Amino acid sequence: MSRPSTKPRSGMRDFLPRDVARRAYVVSVLRQVYERYGFVPLETPAVESLAVLSGKYGEDERLIYRLLLRGEALARALGRRADAAALSADDLSEEALRYDLTVPLARVVAQYGAKLPRYFKRYQIQPVWRADRPGKGRFREFYQCDIDAVGSPGRLCEAEVLSAVAEALAALRLDDVAIHLNHRGLLRAVLAAAGVPEALGTSALTALDKLDKIGPEGVRAELDARGVAPEAAARLLDRVARAEGAEDPRASLAAFAADLGEGAAAAGELADLLDLLAVTKAAGRVRFDPALARGLGYYTGAIFEVRLTGYGFSVAGGGRYDGLVGIFGKQDVPAVGCSIGLERILVVLDERDLYPPLRVGPDVVLCWFGVPGRTVLAAAAALRAGGLRVEVYPDEAKLKKQLAYAASEAVGAPFAAIVGPDEAAAGAVTVKDLARGEQATVPQAEAAAWVAARTEPSEAAGRARPEPGR
Amino acid sequence: MSRPSTKPRSGMRDFLPRDVARRAYVVSVLRQVYERYGFVPLETPAVESLAVLSGKYGEDERLIYRLLLRGEALARALGRRADAAALSADDLSEEALRYDLTVPLARVVAQYGAKLPRYFKRYQIQPVWRADRPGKGRFREFYQCDIDAVGSPGRLCEAEVLSAVAEALAALRLDDVAIHLNHRGLLRAVLAAAGVPEALGTSALTALDKLDKIGPEGVRAELDARGVAPEAAARLLDRVARAEGAEDPRASLAAFAADLGEGAAAAGELADLLDLLAVTKAAGRVRFDPALARGLGYYTGAIFEVRLTGYGFSVAGGGRYDGLVGIFGKQDVPAVGCSIGLERILVVLDERDLYPPLRVGPDVVLCWFGVPGRTVLAAAAALRAGGLRVEVYPDEAKLKKQLAYAASEAVGAPFAAIVGPDEAAAGAVTVKDLARGEQATVPQAEAAAWVAARTEPSEAAGRARPEPGR
Repeated sequence: MSRPSTKPRSGMRDFLPRDVARRAYVVSVLRQVYERYGFVPLETPAVESLAVLSGKYGEDERLIYRLLLRGEALARALGRRADAAALSADDLSEEALRYDLTVPLARVVAQYGAKLPRYFKRYQIQPVWRADRPGKGRFREFYQCDIDAVGSPGRLCEAEVLSAVAEALAALRLDDVAIHLNHRGLLRAVLAAAGVPEALGTSALTALDKLDKIGPEGVRAELDARGVAPEAAARLLDRVARAEGAEDPRASLAAFAADLGEGAAAAGELADLLDLLAVTKAAGRVRFDPALARGLGYYTGAIFEVRLTGYGFSVAGGGRYDGLVGIFGKQDVPAVGCSIGLERILVVLDERDLYPPLRVGPDVVLCWFGVPGRTVLAAAAALRAGGLRVEVYPDEAKLKKQLAYAASEAVGAPFAAIVGPDEAAAGAVTVKDLARGEQATVPQAEAAAWVAARTEPSEAAGRARPEPGR
Repeated sequence: MSRPSTKPRSGMRDFLPRDVARRAYVVSVLRQVYERYGFVPLETPAVESLAVLSGKYGEDERLIYRLLLRGEALARALGRRADAAALSADDLSEEALRYDLTVPLARVVAQYGAKLPRYFKRYQIQPVWRADRPGKGRFREFYQCDIDAVGSPGRLCEAEVLSAVAEALAALRLDDVAIHLNHRGLLRAVLAAAGVPEALGTSALTALDKLDKIGPEGVRAELDARGVAPEAAARLLDRVARAEGAEDPRASLAAFAADLGEGAAAAGELADLLDLLAVTKAAGRVRFDPALARGLGYYTGAIFEVRLTGYGFSVAGGGRYDGLVGIFGKQDVPAVGCSIGLERILVVLDERDLYPPLRVGPDVVLCWFGVPGRTVLAAAAALRAGGLRVEVYPDEAKLKKQLAYAASEAVGAPFAAIVGPDEAAAGAVTVKDLARGEQATVPQAEAAAWVAARTEPSEAAGRARPEPGR
């Protein structure tokens, strides 16, 4: 048998220890901030029934990973058609991998409604799977970090969600956050006012959404190509240009929405939200963006996207969607949420080198010679009792080789400890600072203090700490 | 369209906030202990290629969840056979869900060998999927918490793995841990000495493994049914009975292994291991169990299983397997590991109520009346700045209704804070202890201190804390 490839599947990744530490750092910061805003954690299975997922993602539904039927169910499915070519994916599968965290939330709200708070503010940080073409910051297995506030149609929820996201990104030291804000109702109204036929609405918004990238003339050409009449395109672009005059987002919105008849309610909602945001952590970060459309069809009110300077992708996005959460139940359930994309955050933190010191691996590699294994393990226990992370060199080897192992890049231990016959007789250990070369023989019970005194405070703070309450 | 079921798939579970907190508590304890022993974290994708998984799990391979081919690959596969009934699962899939954490480890060692330390001590805490029949503590999606020490054939690694597991279970306040220990080489030797034909070896061990449950006479009957000659069965059971005379595991092993010719090397390894374990956290917990066989075929040396009083299942198990990790590479790689079953640990902690206080949800629900939204959000920010977890009541409602929401079982907030016109004018907030009824109006900046003074220290300790180093 030929050896199979040991690479991870296309678009999926193995996370070696340093990667895990970086991911865990970001997740831990998000979790803390989310909890400070009163969000509570939810986790759902990786596998959902296709009946739950289907019809929710438009044409992206083809990106869902389906599970093959098993055993007798598969045999029955295959027996149902004589001709193999007549079989479809629907015949061969009834469950699939989680595609996002919003549909599972809707399922959970329908299933456990009475057990959940009337206002359910949940966060969920789990992987999702999409059979998409891999690219920069785009993978087939990736984590979403979602917060959603379910149960209220009010502006306070929207403001809290955006404040939490702004505070989380600030806690990650991302200080160039721009929150782009728009409203679905306003988009509908502006299309109507410009005279774009309803049938061309979605297509026109797709063109408008590119304003940042291709400029007004580019949008005008694309609208033309999409069949929007030149006068309608001109009215649309003219109104968008009005919004650009003002620095303050409220003034910008007011200029844009003036005389916008049926958009008045949406504009009012957005003005109220902007007013609220001025006292939150999102203050100074928000801009009214009349060209922001966002892809997903299920939004019904405010929509937003978070961008950073110099990146073509957004790092977070969301909005109000009052029709989706209730889809599995008997009534509509208003909701607003935002998803932070973990993988994109990591791309930015990597490039900007914004991690705190995150040491993984042992503080100390315990090296030994001329003593029995019991003596080695007893020393390891004594060092661990002092709080040190200790790796025991597992085989007999020359001391030089053991020390080289401790200092090797792959291990990267800052310290070694040595137990030979003299140390053993005295209940001592020789501790060695591998970077500075300094060393001392100290009682085993004092090794942790010796190490701590030679460790940068920031490094110590970067070490794993108990998190008993989660 | 009829509404789909909103239950999770059979054998899979939704974790509501309290469940998530309990699971996270256990994981956090395991992680801390594993890291203290020098293990470093690894994560691998949920999806593996079938070529990597196949041939590793014996007849359990049928429990693997396969992914259906997509798009053109599926069309090609279907076009390859005229007759649908001639199609097999192998035609229709080429990737599958992770079935355990050991095969991915072997893949990672082969793929990144040179980047990894020569001795790779990794821990991995991730879900796996098996299409098994669900039962108590047995699910189709469940977490494994594995540690493995790769690269050394020595006893020190085995002792360290068992010490780490014992320390982790002790940290979870499981104080009735019994570590059953045996050795594959010893099992082979005892079968040979008893005169059990090699062809019946595995079958005989399956019978012997039930000694705990069905007693010697039950095992004798089952050996008979499996075709083992009565004299061979008698010799086997006689030797096992010898081990039962001694309390001390080393004496028990010595009695068992006396005159065991070709088992001497295995017995010697086990004796060395028992000697080492006496100075570790596993001391006093270990027993030599000559009937322990363990199912998986890949073990080559010491094997072990951790049991608790009164449970028919083991909570952890593992052993030395020197043939598996190298399977994807060019040479054998010695390894020893142990897997703690998270779901079973949770069953026991639930039944014994061994959790520390794990409050989830807000410390404070912020209630309000007669003030604008900005005032509410500014008060929320002030309370959060003091370290409180604050949920803002999102809609206009009577104060009584808001307080009832805060105290409701689903929310379970210990405190409410109230902002009305008087508080707003004074930059104050009225804080209310919802259990005791006590309340006071204090400056917003002092609300956190007021709450902290009325929170049990154990509760405060149970709250989520920063974990920046992971």
